[in-house]
Amino acid sequence: MIVVMKASSNNENVQQVLTFLGKHGLTGHPSEGVERTVIGVLGGVGPSGTPGGIGGINPSIGESIEGMPGVESVLRVSKPYKLASREFHPEDTIVNIPVPYVSSGSVGVGGSEVVMMAGPCTVESEQQLMTTAEAVRKEGAVILRGGAFKPSTSPYGFRGLGEEGLKLLAKARSEFGMAIITEVMTPTDVAMVSEYADILQIGTRNMQNYILLDEVGRTQKPVVLKRGMSATIEEWLLAAEYILAHGNRNVILCERGIRTFEKITRNTMDISAIPLIKTLSHLPIISDPSQGTGRRDLVGPMSLASLAAGTDGLLIEVHPNPDEALKDGAQSLTIEQFRELMPQAEAIASAIGRKFVKA
Amino acid sequence: MIVVMKASSNNENVQQVLTFLGKHGLTGHPSEGVERTVIGVLGGVGPSGTPGGIGGINPSIGESIEGMPGVESVLRVSKPYKLASREFHPEDTIVNIPVPYVSSGSVGVGGSEVVMMAGPCTVESEQQLMTTAEAVRKEGAVILRGGAFKPSTSPYGFRGLGEEGLKLLAKARSEFGMAIITEVMTPTDVAMVSEYADILQIGTRNMQNYILLDEVGRTQKPVVLKRGMSATIEEWLLAAEYILAHGNRNVILCERGIRTFEKITRNTMDISAIPLIKTLSHLPIISDPSQGTGRRDLVGPMSLASLAAGTDGLLIEVHPNPDEALKDGAQSLTIEQFRELMPQAEAIASAIGRKFVKA
Amino acid sequence: MIVVMKASSNNENVQQVLTFLGKHGLTGHPSEGVERTVIGVLGGVGPSGTPGGIGGINPSIGESIEGMPGVESVLRVSKPYKLASREFHPEDTIVNIPVPYVSSGSVGVGGSEVVMMAGPCTVESEQQLMTTAEAVRKEGAVILRGGAFKPSTSPYGFRGLGEEGLKLLAKARSEFGMAIITEVMTPTDVAMVSEYADILQIGTRNMQNYILLDEVGRTQKPVVLKRGMSATIEEWLLAAEYILAHGNRNVILCERGIRTFEKITRNTMDISAIPLIKTLSHLPIISDPSQGTGRRDLVGPMSLASLAAGTDGLLIEVHPNPDEALKDGAQSLTIEQFRELMPQAEAIASAIGRKFVKA
Amino acid sequence: MIVVMKASSNNENVQQVLTFLGKHGLTGHPSEGVERTVIGVLGGVGPSGTPGGIGGINPSIGESIEGMPGVESVLRVSKPYKLASREFHPEDTIVNIPVPYVSSGSVGVGGSEVVMMAGPCTVESEQQLMTTAEAVRKEGAVILRGGAFKPSTSPYGFRGLGEEGLKLLAKARSEFGMAIITEVMTPTDVAMVSEYADILQIGTRNMQNYILLDEVGRTQKPVVLKRGMSATIEEWLLAAEYILAHGNRNVILCERGIRTFEKITRNTMDISAIPLIKTLSHLPIISDPSQGTGRRDLVGPMSLASLAAGTDGLLIEVHPNPDEALKDGAQSLTIEQFRELMPQAEAIASAIGRKFVKA
Repeated sequence: MIVVMKASSNNENVQQVLTFLGKHGLTGHPSEGVERTVIGVLGGVGPSGTPGGIGGINPSIGESIEGMPGVESVLRVSKPYKLASREFHPEDTIVNIPVPYVSSGSVGVGGSEVVMMAGPCTVESEQQLMTTAEAVRKEGAVILRGGAFKPSTSPYGFRGLGEEGLKLLAKARSEFGMAIITEVMTPTDVAMVSEYADILQIGTRNMQNYILLDEVGRTQKPVVLKRGMSATIEEWLLAAEYILAHGNRNVILCERGIRTFEKITRNTMDISAIPLIKTLSHLPIISDPSQGTGRRDLVGPMSLASLAAGTDGLLIEVHPNPDEALKDGAQSLTIEQFRELMPQAEAIASAIGRKFVKA
Repeated sequence: MIVVMKASSNNENVQQVLTFLGKHGLTGHPSEGVERTVIGVLGGVGPSGTPGGIGGINPSIGESIEGMPGVESVLRVSKPYKLASREFHPEDTIVNIPVPYVSSGSVGVGGSEVVMMAGPCTVESEQQLMTTAEAVRKEGAVILRGGAFKPSTSPYGFRGLGEEGLKLLAKARSEFGMAIITEVMTPTDVAMVSEYADILQIGTRNMQNYILLDEVGRTQKPVVLKRGMSATIEEWLLAAEYILAHGNRNVILCERGIRTFEKITRNTMDISAIPLIKTLSHLPIISDPSQGTGRRDLVGPMSLASLAAGTDGLLIEVHPNPDEALKDGAQSLTIEQFRELMPQAEAIASAIGRKFVKA
Repeated sequence: MIVVMKASSNNENVQQVLTFLGKHGLTGHPSEGVERTVIGVLGGVGPSGTPGGIGGINPSIGESIEGMPGVESVLRVSKPYKLASREFHPEDTIVNIPVPYVSSGSVGVGGSEVVMMAGPCTVESEQQLMTTAEAVRKEGAVILRGGAFKPSTSPYGFRGLGEEGLKLLAKARSEFGMAIITEVMTPTDVAMVSEYADILQIGTRNMQNYILLDEVGRTQKPVVLKRGMSATIEEWLLAAEYILAHGNRNVILCERGIRTFEKITRNTMDISAIPLIKTLSHLPIISDPSQGTGRRDLVGPMSLASLAAGTDGLLIEVHPNPDEALKDGAQSLTIEQFRELMPQAEAIASAIGRKFVKA
Repeated sequence: MIVVMKASSNNENVQQVLTFLGKHGLTGHPSEGVERTVIGVLGGVGPSGTPGGIGGINPSIGESIEGMPGVESVLRVSKPYKLASREFHPEDTIVNIPVPYVSSGSVGVGGSEVVMMAGPCTVESEQQLMTTAEAVRKEGAVILRGGAFKPSTSPYGFRGLGEEGLKLLAKARSEFGMAIITEVMTPTDVAMVSEYADILQIGTRNMQNYILLDEVGRTQKPVVLKRGMSATIEEWLLAAEYILAHGNRNVILCERGIRTFEKITRNTMDISAIPLIKTLSHLPIISDPSQGTGRRDLVGPMSLASLAAGTDGLLIEVHPNPDEALKDGAQSLTIEQFRELMPQAEAIASAIGRKFVKA
């Protein structure tokens, strides 16, 4: 941590900062420059029980100093996340998902192979789900997506079938041997959803629902953590850190677009997040071009772009009859469109030396 | 709802839209323009159980049409919220809060008087809370704020004293006769927090935590609903609609800044939201300049600006010794600064013909 | 254009709108819905001299109506650009650039082949430019980029060599047979820059410098129009419309990232703009991953993502010794890094059935 | 400047940074922390001719270092602007405008009094301008606004009357004794516009039109510099620095809203910029609530909010018949609305101990 003093600050201001640091067991080293003094703060001991204390310095100490007289700003030197950081865990994390249908019995997300996850936005009926599952499996999907609990911006929108939807997903798993990914929206549902699902999805609106993060952190279930719609990369990794800190290391990040001033697309997909996450973290990252764009005609190109940028998987909405979908029909591919996408996706994966997991 | 067809669309495309509308009990009226056809969709019956069906048209129908061949876009005519809308409820809502300390025994938020809510960001100790409560009451605050459950971006940050903090708040209430506002973060805590608090606060990260909104909607407790950090005004009113739709009409909106590209302030306070909400809705709106700016030196000017723009109340962080605060010290006023702010705030209120609630 | 009246509007309000429309030679058709009246406005004659009058309706008429009593909002049906629109010009535009070094003598941007443009951010010296030109040509670039007039956020930053830089670029062209792209910053420089350059670049800060757009519109030089850092897709196409309306049809769009709340990257590259532009417009689009990310380590992945999404070309900063660059060193590739990128880029192009223009 | 090394960096990386600094006449002081090394860079000599060299360190040096191996990030200690900074110029700048109509013959912007500037968005006709001028002067405006050269997002929109409009403005000045503010859009027009106008306005789209900033910097005319619609406060002050660096010290900043995700308002007015600018800079700042909101019904509240936050002036669009305006009618006040606003504005000014300049 580095404390930058104002050009107009005086000795007393500097002393007050040094005294405050001392009270918190830290030592400051002032250097006088041409224009201003800066105080370097190194070392220190973190709060017991935290993994190394985030560089030894409690984040709120910096905030308090920022408000002290004569202080211009406080610059942070260390990253605020640790378990999620590649610096402290250089090897790639591979999250294993049991997939009966695959010959090896499981699929690794974050390894050399790319994973296709597809299915309807929302589980609407047995027929809709089974038709879609069979079709996407045939084209190469190994994980089946489908929402049973759905966040809806409007209280009058469709909010999903609930546990009934989970049962249909379990049925599809037993019938087709695919793994199941589905969203969990509240801490008290974690145990129930975990019974039916292979991967718990945390949606964009819940990326900072800390009680929910705590709860999925206490399981060992793989978790797909979607980026909050206005979350910085750092906040996203801090949300992952919540889950990791509770002992669940099976975290997969998912880029799904951020909110910008552009109005034609629902969100602006931040493709650069994919290589950035690979640099900053050891965790796998997948892409959701359906939510990321909100437009069916962009799902294909953004799937290919994600793959070219190094994504570990795709999460794609497919519906046998999107015009009849109860939710997000405009962004769902038809089965035919999904069928056309797969060979293109495989060609891009192959161009960067990867291939899709196959049965 | 209006469906705009592409210039290149054909008769068959138009027919498909009309057929789809028919299936959902709606009638489309096509008009051919110079360049393109538009289809007006009027009337229709909403899903039973919803208040009037939001103009009679299920929002997902528009989304589905948007993905159909030959369709350029779908323009919504009606607002998606109803109970929160001033169009359907022209009179101002006044939310009554019991405040023993005030002579009338209660305070109305949203009426002609402005309400000052102040206190520490986070309850840290009995002494900190009592000192602050006494001081802010003396200057004119009638509602005491203080977090017992705190969202923290980092898992290693301070997350509040929990129920212990609630007990201290209740003690402050019984000692000083002020009403208590405190945050509730998860549905299972709603009952417990309601025992201690007079106003439940929903934080910015939980504005779209729908299960939590459902739960506070089932109580009759006044709720302060903070704007999500990247929520549009419409989404914010839809979140209020969740609470209202469950029967709790005691909703107070709170502008607390939105996320923009600016880096010097933590958030950009959207002061224009105050008069806009007054136009679009009948609900009261208050302002949180502490979270809204993240900088102590801006809390005063932004309090005055909020008042001039018509806010119904202020929610201000005050700490007896902000440099020692366990959370958000940089944005807390000292007691002395709060004391200086009050007469300025009163002068602005008076300039627009309002005054602060007084004991 | 559709005028949506407030639920509370009355007959007189509707009449006032109809009268206003009549004064401007337009006819409104009111329809009464369950909740409110909407007025459809079709046809009408545009201002003489404009290409068809943008659906026949002057944009400011809608703005005026939006402020009239009883009016809720005005919905636009037609797109505000015409010459740039694919609806009115379905065939792809291919912009031809003379490139002596290529066997056919020219290169088409927007056709089946992809074009590599590379070179230093800024022309610094003859040696720097020649070394880079030779190296990037060897790897497959056919167009040489290099700034002679540079926008600098700080008045104390390097602003380029000016005409001296242009002369060096011309020398590189005559020596290596590559075409030259360079920025023009102000209308009075257009003639001079046109003497030396094959493509005029309009930078992000000048996307809405209308006098400059007018001026390049009066030439027949190919123009690369960078997206404004906070421009919507629609505003970008309207800026292109300025150039097209003056008779210069040789417009190439360039996605270079937009401004969001994310701080790790300089900009957020909007890869979805590539397929969107292909849908909305017939104009070619290229990508600038150097400006788009501001980080050398992201240039490779974002180049590949752009190609997978369908870009017609890449504009990449390469410097023989980026640590010594006078500008934007952090985002320039070394020659070695550029050499490694080319075969990867070719593999992605090939995966989607395209190839790079070659000598 | 502080260079933060990666945890994984080695001695060689540190040496390379030190060597690079040495080449540029700078000395680095490495400190080894628990996790990583940081290098403090103090002093150094700026490029000759620049005012003190911006802390002595050329901004591009930091950028180059950011790309070097083993470097995590570069933290800037000094602000990049100097002439605009309050640190180096603690006293408030007051910009004097000659106003014949005022008894003292001039008005100071940035002093204790607040200045009202009002008039039509665009000069449309003699009658429109004279009617408006007379009316706003009667209510208390001392400066008349009116656009002769107008930026229009669409090439088919109205772009103003040009020099004819300037002549009408000059006529209004001679008739009513008010000062004139009008926009200049391109460097070659600066001399001509300066003949007619008392204040040159640089519009939001031209905030980073550096050639234009250079040109107005070479005059001594007062300049109102509007904030770019996506400009950070720092970039805005750097744009002001351009003008100041050329010797023109008569710079007035103008907050006019920034671009966010919100769609109901045209822009989001950043009221917090007003007190922030007062902290960071000695320059005066005024507010434009017409452009800042795009909605007539918000102009009043946002004017009052700006005053409460400390603005030095207001720039308000008024039109005798806004429904007939050729541009931006929806955001123009009627004369009657302006008349109602003035006493409210005066009441707020008075509440914070200021008053409006009066004849």
